[in-house]
Amino acid sequence: MKRPENRVWRVLSSEYLARRPWFTVRREKVALPNGTIVPEWYIFEFPDWINVIALTREGKFIFISQYRHAIGQTRYELTAGVIDAEDASPEAAARRELLEETGYGGGKWELFMTLSPNPTNHTNMVYTFLATDVELMAPQHTEASEDIMVHLLSRDEVRELLDEGEIIQALHAAPLWKFFAERPR
Amino acid sequence: MKRPENRVWRVLSSEYLARRPWFTVRREKVALPNGTIVPEWYIFEFPDWINVIALTREGKFIFISQYRHAIGQTRYELTAGVIDAEDASPEAAARRELLEETGYGGGKWELFMTLSPNPTNHTNMVYTFLATDVELMAPQHTEASEDIMVHLLSRDEVRELLDEGEIIQALHAAPLWKFFAERPR
Repeated sequence: MKRPENRVWRVLSSEYLARRPWFTVRREKVALPNGTIVPEWYIFEFPDWINVIALTREGKFIFISQYRHAIGQTRYELTAGVIDAEDASPEAAARRELLEETGYGGGKWELFMTLSPNPTNHTNMVYTFLATDVELMAPQHTEASEDIMVHLLSRDEVRELLDEGEIIQALHAAPLWKFFAERPR
Repeated sequence: MKRPENRVWRVLSSEYLARRPWFTVRREKVALPNGTIVPEWYIFEFPDWINVIALTREGKFIFISQYRHAIGQTRYELTAGVIDAEDASPEAAARRELLEETGYGGGKWELFMTLSPNPTNHTNMVYTFLATDVELMAPQHTEASEDIMVHLLSRDEVRELLDEGEIIQALHAAPLWKFFAERPR
């Protein structure tokens, strides 16, 4: 389908409020096509992110769990991370993260989905990869700031987590529901 | 399934960097259970959000399109918004937003999905409602800062947008893929 008309805003002024790792924010004053001036629009600049739906040769889904400070909870999640300057490609970043966080690698990889965390105020995109036939290749090798548990789940267990609303991270729920929509039993 | 162990971080210090509408940020110094100290963790405080999968009596999906400044693009989206202090409930907020942005209302409503935009750094949750048998009840009534087009799409058109990767807002893609996973033809 044809994309809707792009009614672009005009930037009247733009300034950085903060430029830190994990926290780069700019504030812009913008004009809409209808003439309305919005004096404060906040934009968060992040590097692109990746996450992975990884399946072992035996058909198990590789999940992790990790404390998420903003909501104070720990849920089942996909392996996920940031594309670093050293990563040759989004897939390379995804392979690196899966290996670091879980010890799994190898197998066949494809780009499965591309999302925006929030096109209103996030500049970055998120790439989900589907990796099949991955194997345990190395011990988990996380940073000190990462406290990550690995869980191998069956297809039925993953579907149960989705049905129960336990996968609350939108960037993980979207590709997982897509997986099940495209691959009904 | 049982939720994973919650390995809570200890907050050593916390300060607000900004408290503006649409931009409230605090920085915290935290200690992980393994003793690692993270000196800077940024948390964005937002009110809870809603969005709506709305279907008319004729089975058309109500979509909107709206310029999204952080990525400079306009795509098809669900009706979405913020739960205001005056809203009696998330459903009341969702009904208000659908009426304001599209003029549609009435019908049967149910809570369809609950997501976190990003549990790492967003405090808020997002509630998706499924509204069926909605009807055109009033003219569109948007704010000056909203430049919104309404689109009535067939089920096949919505599935085509999903298949083509055109629904890039993760908070909309997740409930829409869930809808199609749960309701195959």
